[in-house]
Amino acid sequence: MKPASTTLRGDRSTTALLLIDLINTWRMADGRKLLNQTLAILPQLVRLKARAAKAHAPVVYVNDNFGQWRSDFKQVVARARRATTGAARVVEALCPGSDDYFILKPRHSGFFSTPLDLLLQELNISRLVLCGVAGDQCVLATASDALVRKYEVVVPRDTIACAEASRTAAVLKHFRVVMDIPVVDSARVRWR
Amino acid sequence: MKPASTTLRGDRSTTALLLIDLINTWRMADGRKLLNQTLAILPQLVRLKARAAKAHAPVVYVNDNFGQWRSDFKQVVARARRATTGAARVVEALCPGSDDYFILKPRHSGFFSTPLDLLLQELNISRLVLCGVAGDQCVLATASDALVRKYEVVVPRDTIACAEASRTAAVLKHFRVVMDIPVVDSARVRWR
Amino acid sequence: MKPASTTLRGDRSTTALLLIDLINTWRMADGRKLLNQTLAILPQLVRLKARAAKAHAPVVYVNDNFGQWRSDFKQVVARARRATTGAARVVEALCPGSDDYFILKPRHSGFFSTPLDLLLQELNISRLVLCGVAGDQCVLATASDALVRKYEVVVPRDTIACAEASRTAAVLKHFRVVMDIPVVDSARVRWR
Amino acid sequence: MKPASTTLRGDRSTTALLLIDLINTWRMADGRKLLNQTLAILPQLVRLKARAAKAHAPVVYVNDNFGQWRSDFKQVVARARRATTGAARVVEALCPGSDDYFILKPRHSGFFSTPLDLLLQELNISRLVLCGVAGDQCVLATASDALVRKYEVVVPRDTIACAEASRTAAVLKHFRVVMDIPVVDSARVRWR
Repeated sequence: MKPASTTLRGDRSTTALLLIDLINTWRMADGRKLLNQTLAILPQLVRLKARAAKAHAPVVYVNDNFGQWRSDFKQVVARARRATTGAARVVEALCPGSDDYFILKPRHSGFFSTPLDLLLQELNISRLVLCGVAGDQCVLATASDALVRKYEVVVPRDTIACAEASRTAAVLKHFRVVMDIPVVDSARVRWR
Repeated sequence: MKPASTTLRGDRSTTALLLIDLINTWRMADGRKLLNQTLAILPQLVRLKARAAKAHAPVVYVNDNFGQWRSDFKQVVARARRATTGAARVVEALCPGSDDYFILKPRHSGFFSTPLDLLLQELNISRLVLCGVAGDQCVLATASDALVRKYEVVVPRDTIACAEASRTAAVLKHFRVVMDIPVVDSARVRWR
Repeated sequence: MKPASTTLRGDRSTTALLLIDLINTWRMADGRKLLNQTLAILPQLVRLKARAAKAHAPVVYVNDNFGQWRSDFKQVVARARRATTGAARVVEALCPGSDDYFILKPRHSGFFSTPLDLLLQELNISRLVLCGVAGDQCVLATASDALVRKYEVVVPRDTIACAEASRTAAVLKHFRVVMDIPVVDSARVRWR
Repeated sequence: MKPASTTLRGDRSTTALLLIDLINTWRMADGRKLLNQTLAILPQLVRLKARAAKAHAPVVYVNDNFGQWRSDFKQVVARARRATTGAARVVEALCPGSDDYFILKPRHSGFFSTPLDLLLQELNISRLVLCGVAGDQCVLATASDALVRKYEVVVPRDTIACAEASRTAAVLKHFRVVMDIPVVDSARVRWR
């Protein structure tokens, strides 16, 4: 087996938390609805990130580049902060820190045409906790690409959002029944 | 723009038909249920393939390699034919011909770690008609990977099957509502 | 054929200039030698970039991320500028502007686990002019990955550098004889 | 770290032997020259394969699909056998057995748009012995793609061939000096 890298030593857990598309201007179809659903789960997202940090699990912002191939993640954060009051609330609550990792993705899945898989290999990660938006689009595509790459995947039921609550319920059922992914309360995620 | 290859001249259409995982031993979880659902749509699958051929649209068997890294597609066909009476019925009805293309896939999506995207580029294909099994697993994963690669995707509603009819209904809704994929009767697919 | 995106309209040429690993701290094996060889071709690099800009050919910095998964390209530029006087000279001469594109690569080839191919597709690029360092490492790996993706490749002979002049000569011969890549004077590159 | 698969149990070594493009019709530019250079190293290739088998190291034929997207590897073997007397000699000497693995590649590198990386992961391989043709084209491209994926690579000096002996010498120097790949006599390859 290929040896895991030892260049990124600070993180000890083999589980990583992926925060998907939460740094957002919400200027897309159904953006306002999705933002509202996201504001409703914001406290759980904040607590989930705090628990990951406490467990020394790497936190990776897997975020749309919004077609701005010239920007860096800081610009994405700044643009989201300026977009609307609601967008700014999410950014304030989940503001990336100096220990966090960033992957800018050009399409739905966090793995498509990005170095995410390499980063996770360097961090020696085998298990992913997925949260964010939209549950049935970018989160689902990332979950699917994670499974084909043999990562273990966990989805906390109260930290993903879709444009409609019924869609969130449908995709949670899909994760559980079709993809055989454990769907748990975010307070019960184990970090190891 | 990069020029399309002209090495594979016989096919004229820019639409291809992908037959997903229909050459199968059905020896997996829910295999018997899935086979039964598939036998129920077999006549429509046969007619869909005939229409594709008539329209000179390439037909690509995108099929699991079933962990047999030593085998070729002919062996996969032979093994399916021997598996059970039901499996043999599907193979007889949809037997690959000398004009068809074959992609053996190691995971759910037909695009993951296979030359499918290259083959479609060589054939100058921009639009995919997806059919086969399981609708909410390999067909869904292939549809998702097709969209990120900017293919147009069509799913004929009566030529995909899942282990349960309710799951077929759920994934058809997902294609339509979440992925914005046209879901049409197989008799109404346009080939161009 | 899949349509090229029209979201990035400013650039008209179907040729792009790739500047490979020039924003650098030169703190690697043979780094000082490579920096010296690079300083010798710096005037040609500056003129090549100016000609690309004049021809409205997109300029893409394809640059190592130096294991800093948390950094953005601005940090890479800032770190290079602070590294040594020589490193700063290269940064000053070739400082990325607001029209330029950035791809941070985790390995040798600019295409491996990055969105470079997608960016070039969005820009409707079919031809790449490659320059930078090291000619027989990252430039060669990027050229090889460009050819398998059917890009036309041109290498201006006086804008690549290796640790030793003899290695530059050897790789230029390899480009020409083995890979059938046109090797031309940088003043003679056509932009279209 | 993700667990290695245990589905392919027969092979014990963490080293694999890759036989590159040796099953060939040699109907390409410089094909006759390359065939002659290959016939000269054929005895060493045969012994290398025998030693790999004895050490229970998996043998993987990584072979061009020659644009025949409809064919399987057996057809590639049959076509090579019929091509010329020289081509048939290589096929007879290196005929794939029932324990060997096959990867049909559409481009130069064995890793590009193929399941090679997945197969090697399933076999728990971390080290590759590369041999075959052309040394400075498909072998070099495969070596380069192996290194970025963190495989250890070894090239036996007397089991690769190029169209000209001088090109073989040049690429062996490139492997050694530029890529830091051990270049050894084929009789001295260790299998572990």
